[in-house]
Amino acid sequence: MPIPQHTFDPPFNIIRCSHAVLDVVDLAASRKFYEDMIGLHVEDSDSNAVYLRGYEEHQHHSLVLRKAKSAACNRLGFKVASEKDLDKAAEFLAANKIQHAFVEQPFQGRTLQFTDPFGYQIELYARMDKRSHLLRRYDLYKGCHPQRLDHFNVFAAEVQDTVDFYARLGFRLTEYAEEDGPNGRIAAAWMHRKGNVHDFAITNGKGPRLHHFAYWVPTAMNILHLCDVMATSGYLKNLERGPGRHGISNAFFLYVRDPDGHRCEIYTSDYNTMDHDHEPLRWSLRDPRRQTLWGAPAPRSWFEEGSPFAGQQLREPQFKADVIIAD
Amino acid sequence: MPIPQHTFDPPFNIIRCSHAVLDVVDLAASRKFYEDMIGLHVEDSDSNAVYLRGYEEHQHHSLVLRKAKSAACNRLGFKVASEKDLDKAAEFLAANKIQHAFVEQPFQGRTLQFTDPFGYQIELYARMDKRSHLLRRYDLYKGCHPQRLDHFNVFAAEVQDTVDFYARLGFRLTEYAEEDGPNGRIAAAWMHRKGNVHDFAITNGKGPRLHHFAYWVPTAMNILHLCDVMATSGYLKNLERGPGRHGISNAFFLYVRDPDGHRCEIYTSDYNTMDHDHEPLRWSLRDPRRQTLWGAPAPRSWFEEGSPFAGQQLREPQFKADVIIAD
Amino acid sequence: MPIPQHTFDPPFNIIRCSHAVLDVVDLAASRKFYEDMIGLHVEDSDSNAVYLRGYEEHQHHSLVLRKAKSAACNRLGFKVASEKDLDKAAEFLAANKIQHAFVEQPFQGRTLQFTDPFGYQIELYARMDKRSHLLRRYDLYKGCHPQRLDHFNVFAAEVQDTVDFYARLGFRLTEYAEEDGPNGRIAAAWMHRKGNVHDFAITNGKGPRLHHFAYWVPTAMNILHLCDVMATSGYLKNLERGPGRHGISNAFFLYVRDPDGHRCEIYTSDYNTMDHDHEPLRWSLRDPRRQTLWGAPAPRSWFEEGSPFAGQQLREPQFKADVIIAD
Amino acid sequence: MPIPQHTFDPPFNIIRCSHAVLDVVDLAASRKFYEDMIGLHVEDSDSNAVYLRGYEEHQHHSLVLRKAKSAACNRLGFKVASEKDLDKAAEFLAANKIQHAFVEQPFQGRTLQFTDPFGYQIELYARMDKRSHLLRRYDLYKGCHPQRLDHFNVFAAEVQDTVDFYARLGFRLTEYAEEDGPNGRIAAAWMHRKGNVHDFAITNGKGPRLHHFAYWVPTAMNILHLCDVMATSGYLKNLERGPGRHGISNAFFLYVRDPDGHRCEIYTSDYNTMDHDHEPLRWSLRDPRRQTLWGAPAPRSWFEEGSPFAGQQLREPQFKADVIIAD
Repeated sequence: MPIPQHTFDPPFNIIRCSHAVLDVVDLAASRKFYEDMIGLHVEDSDSNAVYLRGYEEHQHHSLVLRKAKSAACNRLGFKVASEKDLDKAAEFLAANKIQHAFVEQPFQGRTLQFTDPFGYQIELYARMDKRSHLLRRYDLYKGCHPQRLDHFNVFAAEVQDTVDFYARLGFRLTEYAEEDGPNGRIAAAWMHRKGNVHDFAITNGKGPRLHHFAYWVPTAMNILHLCDVMATSGYLKNLERGPGRHGISNAFFLYVRDPDGHRCEIYTSDYNTMDHDHEPLRWSLRDPRRQTLWGAPAPRSWFEEGSPFAGQQLREPQFKADVIIAD
Repeated sequence: MPIPQHTFDPPFNIIRCSHAVLDVVDLAASRKFYEDMIGLHVEDSDSNAVYLRGYEEHQHHSLVLRKAKSAACNRLGFKVASEKDLDKAAEFLAANKIQHAFVEQPFQGRTLQFTDPFGYQIELYARMDKRSHLLRRYDLYKGCHPQRLDHFNVFAAEVQDTVDFYARLGFRLTEYAEEDGPNGRIAAAWMHRKGNVHDFAITNGKGPRLHHFAYWVPTAMNILHLCDVMATSGYLKNLERGPGRHGISNAFFLYVRDPDGHRCEIYTSDYNTMDHDHEPLRWSLRDPRRQTLWGAPAPRSWFEEGSPFAGQQLREPQFKADVIIAD
Repeated sequence: MPIPQHTFDPPFNIIRCSHAVLDVVDLAASRKFYEDMIGLHVEDSDSNAVYLRGYEEHQHHSLVLRKAKSAACNRLGFKVASEKDLDKAAEFLAANKIQHAFVEQPFQGRTLQFTDPFGYQIELYARMDKRSHLLRRYDLYKGCHPQRLDHFNVFAAEVQDTVDFYARLGFRLTEYAEEDGPNGRIAAAWMHRKGNVHDFAITNGKGPRLHHFAYWVPTAMNILHLCDVMATSGYLKNLERGPGRHGISNAFFLYVRDPDGHRCEIYTSDYNTMDHDHEPLRWSLRDPRRQTLWGAPAPRSWFEEGSPFAGQQLREPQFKADVIIAD
Repeated sequence: MPIPQHTFDPPFNIIRCSHAVLDVVDLAASRKFYEDMIGLHVEDSDSNAVYLRGYEEHQHHSLVLRKAKSAACNRLGFKVASEKDLDKAAEFLAANKIQHAFVEQPFQGRTLQFTDPFGYQIELYARMDKRSHLLRRYDLYKGCHPQRLDHFNVFAAEVQDTVDFYARLGFRLTEYAEEDGPNGRIAAAWMHRKGNVHDFAITNGKGPRLHHFAYWVPTAMNILHLCDVMATSGYLKNLERGPGRHGISNAFFLYVRDPDGHRCEIYTSDYNTMDHDHEPLRWSLRDPRRQTLWGAPAPRSWFEEGSPFAGQQLREPQFKADVIIAD
């Protein structure tokens, strides 16, 4: 199957992934997890929501926890270059008959929300309230020293269509996993806007669901220390997978589950991809180094569990790429 | 003094800094330094030149060592998005009466060379020969595990004009050091195209000269190990400054001098700057944390010495910002 | 069951574990593994044996590979304080009717060999040829930067008796795993002479067999890099377990298998135990953090496989502590 | 000059250095420094004293801060093997006409205090109150993760005599710095009891004074992070020297000054020395790698300043080894 052809001239200019909005059932427990274990900085909070960010982020929040009756991914946020891009986005969505609306969101400027054709709930904005970054405020560092939100990874029931849709929006493919053979289907794709391995990864599976969102940390040592701390703070069972090295992206990773089961990846060391002639790297589904360059296999939960999007129907994937599970 | 206003709509699209071409007097000695100590991968070599790259680089070379009668910076290379951008660049240079020429360069496609109004010898290209990256070839890792060229830093006799020129080319300011007071002049500027702290930094001083070029390494541990190895391999005097933490850019750094005295920075941990509303950070020249967040002051050589550009006249800086030296 | 009472006045003074002698079927393959992957320094070699050591070791060898028809642990070496201690040891062995003999061993002074009552083949010596240590020869560092042999770990069919025997020789208990309940049996014991967690650990299982020997490395980063290198150098299957943190000893560990299946632990970060009133730490067999403070469970091979001692009969363990396997 | 001959049969058995007792003028400020910056665990405190320990220490305290009118080193504590050793020590001191007394000290058993012939105020004990160690209580880790007290370093006006005295007590020499030539005098000596590079180091200079006491941390990364935190928490001027690598001991080090100017070394990575035939390493005073394998020279304060012992007269050193200062 031909790999998707991204455009360098998209209908509007998305700069990068920006923030995740999660529905959580116990706001205090969630805040404790992200503030004390992960070490995110709480910028604002009230009885219904907590706003957090990493140490290098100037923006008001990259994670919003919202009190809700049931756990879900509420929304994924992307930042566009300018206010004009918001208008161009609205035009594009209208032309493509995708429901959308400008809404008010706390601490953000004009915000355009839509649900894409596959059920992912997205919001776009150009301006968010700014705060001084905390990168040199080492006196405040906690947890695993999270620097910035790095990417989202979703389960998609219709992988190829989803990848094609985001390629039209200018997301560029960096790596992909494919069935072998002349008719091999793409089973997973890593796509970026900001110039590293990904802003948005799309994996074959029951969808739409969020597989994980990821924070960047400075070094693997921060990740090992987080393991030690979680294991001795009552969060042993929240350590789902890792630490280890992915073949894909070359990242050193750890996957943790928050009190609602939302999956957060702690991530470091990928590579630059901003060249216009950067060529995507293909992985055979049969190459086990894709998932883990070394180390123990991923547990079943990692392949199967994810956060539904609030209010979206789940669909089975169009095909079974069972080799992934077998890894 | 107002900070330079970069454009988001430059006359042609530079993606990032790409490669340095250095004139060296003893090719074997230089190769030994960069291959065995720093750990760059030698991709090609003949009796007149050695071509090296970092482990994540797909491009054929990010450092070229050329045998010469005297040591100099021969040229700084930047990559543009496409062949069309080369033509647009030629038009821009012609319109601005800047001498330029398309030349043949080994392992590169069409290459446009020019000397900017301040004497920096630049070359632009869109396509270079590709090689498989070595990021997952850990079996080949040597030295301090250099991943990629990160940036150039030059001494400029006319800082403000140089900064303004590159702002017109789309370089965006991320940090700058300025004299205090209502008429304070900019003494140094860090500017980027690729979305991190810098591709090109411009510092007040006798110019045009290259202050240093920098390679990115994964962690500070790689830098500490390089110190240990250089100190016990006959390169103790080549350790000029560091390791330490810059206030500017928050980088963990080490400066080493190669056998010709060319300065190479080993660099890790900066931050993302791709937002269109990213605001530059101002440093007072009187703030000592700018140079070194902690640790010993820089030696005099670090402030005074640099590599001239082959064939360019040196000019004294337009003003003395002696506070820098006093740091 | 009462924990063994070590003596502070042993019949002779063992200083520490010193060296392992392994029978290997392909000397070149074994040398390649330990020299190029692990990074041990080859001090001497001939067609029948290779002698290796870690970077801080003054002694001629801490690992001897000997060409043999079948793989086995040939012998475990311990260093005593002085020549007199060798004579005292011979007296003790004679008094206890344990076969022993003084032998010539290359690069060692007077060497006393014996097989203990449980089948472990041991040798004692006071003087070995000396070499300059390589600790500051960073120019020679390779692999995971192994500093020194740290300990041996053996499977014992008669755990309690084996522990008691070595307690009589002055080995002091630091940690132990025990069945719960009033008649709980000791299933594993960690014992030291040199003042850290262990020189010799004894684990319930089919014995006598060597479970592993361990080299100390400076930091976890050296271990992560070894994983990356082995995985990309054809040694992926030799990565048996880890990296991870043991509850026991608090060590950060990796277990690798050499070409003959001998198990080598790469080990860092334990603690001091030289106080005479240091109290041993008890672990319930039911506490999963004993094996792994966090991270994936150990594979079955880790519990079941080990190196026999050349020429010794294997015996089933006196009891089944199946909980260990179930971890 | 012949190097001192230590005895393996000392008059009483000192196990290791154990604790420092410091007089401080502002107890709250000192506590804040050691608890929040260094990260020591406060075990007990009252209005006159604070008792702290490292994470692996079972003993009640390894640092005691005592409120006083002026800053001084009050006492250095060493642990002996048993109560009998205290009696043997008292006999030895009586036989050598050294004033001594058994005293009550909080949280310690029987404690024998004396002032040695050179003015160092020492206390010996065999039993101290025990606490659970915190090594696996990663939830409590703070600061630079100090594990244990490692050693003391003192200025001595009579280096050779002081070294000889402690050699009689069984302290073994591991490294020493010496003037060149046939009559070269020892200018500094590193001596141990516990089996690593040192428990007690003795340096030529105005004495008796404490140069520093040292805590062991797991890796250099903990030291780099401490620099970042201190520099951004108002303790920039308390960073006196480093981080860097000593030639001597191969330690990675940082020297910090507490609010009273007492010097604390943060230290990692040395080597084992428990072999009875371990040979001391000689450094020429003219070898600059002794002080710093690489990196910036030590500031003048590091050579000249130290903590007097409460109530002792200072004496000028017997000779000037000015090369040290010139390093």
